[in-house]
Amino acid sequence: MTAPTTTSPTRADRTDVLTLLGLVAHLELVAFTRLAADSAEAPTIDQRLRLMRFSAGAVDRLDRIFARIESLGGRPDAEIARFAHALDDFDARTAPGSWWERLLTAYVGYGVADDFCKAAAAGLDDATRDLVMDVLDGASHAELTVATLSGAAEGDAVLTSRLALWGRRLVGEALGVVQTLVASQPSLARLALDGGEDTGPADGEAVTRLFGRLTAEHTRRMGRLGLTA
Amino acid sequence: MTAPTTTSPTRADRTDVLTLLGLVAHLELVAFTRLAADSAEAPTIDQRLRLMRFSAGAVDRLDRIFARIESLGGRPDAEIARFAHALDDFDARTAPGSWWERLLTAYVGYGVADDFCKAAAAGLDDATRDLVMDVLDGASHAELTVATLSGAAEGDAVLTSRLALWGRRLVGEALGVVQTLVASQPSLARLALDGGEDTGPADGEAVTRLFGRLTAEHTRRMGRLGLTA
Repeated sequence: MTAPTTTSPTRADRTDVLTLLGLVAHLELVAFTRLAADSAEAPTIDQRLRLMRFSAGAVDRLDRIFARIESLGGRPDAEIARFAHALDDFDARTAPGSWWERLLTAYVGYGVADDFCKAAAAGLDDATRDLVMDVLDGASHAELTVATLSGAAEGDAVLTSRLALWGRRLVGEALGVVQTLVASQPSLARLALDGGEDTGPADGEAVTRLFGRLTAEHTRRMGRLGLTA
Repeated sequence: MTAPTTTSPTRADRTDVLTLLGLVAHLELVAFTRLAADSAEAPTIDQRLRLMRFSAGAVDRLDRIFARIESLGGRPDAEIARFAHALDDFDARTAPGSWWERLLTAYVGYGVADDFCKAAAAGLDDATRDLVMDVLDGASHAELTVATLSGAAEGDAVLTSRLALWGRRLVGEALGVVQTLVASQPSLARLALDGGEDTGPADGEAVTRLFGRLTAEHTRRMGRLGLTA
């Protein structure tokens, strides 16, 4: 059964939309804190300031998501609370050992998270989808990472292989988070696996397609750093 | 000898002005990081968001100070680097043991720091002084602290006496930082003790006046929390 295309979501969709907005909001909340902590560890004042700006930008993005949640009749604090511990395991297992690893952690972790949210947003009404896409594009601090890491790893075989290894560990943990989210939040499973249509429990093929897509994007991202995924 | 009153500082003043702007910029840089870390520990989402906004606001304030440093022909990174470790001792000695102590640490620490900067700014040209005053007023997260701590401490004699004790420890450490700054940065001594006039080594009376003023302001701030200084 196909839901009608409208700018304001149907009642069944509304829960799904609010859930995804809650996830995006939580990711911005965590991005703020993480990038702020990263900025304090930056080796140069220039990098510190850039990370501070990325971090501060997350507050504006959060406000835009909150405004959309409210305009759909949701409560931002309730939607965000759903994901309070979504990244705890990821954080506990990926404590970075160096500045390079720290930059790579945010790059890979947010890369996978953003791709997942974009995949899930495809089934939303136009206005919400455009907002989510715009917010996620604004969240990227990929350029700083690419400039810093590709320069550092070039010609340093030990660092290159260490970062490639770290990248593989990160993507494994990040995909684990996605798996948990899809398994625990039916709304996210519907959006990310079925394009928002209620087709019952997600089939294995849809899961394989999603993970294939996330892995391919990760490989492309690592390639930008000159690292094999 | 009295320096002529001009909107653009004389050559002798310029170093002093840039030094103070560097200190204010460093305080904003540290405020960003500290308030971001505080926000991650906030017990409610509402407090977390408020602290995130205070933190993000520090980036705007930093940009305004940097712009002024550049318009005076200074280099922001060089001016800020002068104070790279100015707060290390304070931080090492005032690791908060609870959420209340954490809020109080920023309240007292930034209270003293702001008062010192305001005292030093009195001798600046009008435009720079107005900017510094405006930036420092915007930096205050005092309202959140007053609302949270005065409510919490009311009717809880143990918490009240613990926080009063913590406040005394904080102000002692904060005044120690001021003492070190004045002793190590002749520009700051000239501005804070002599109103910007070069009267040679600061006399004891001027130092006593400055510390008396900072202590009186601290006592007034603690009073707003219902705590004795």
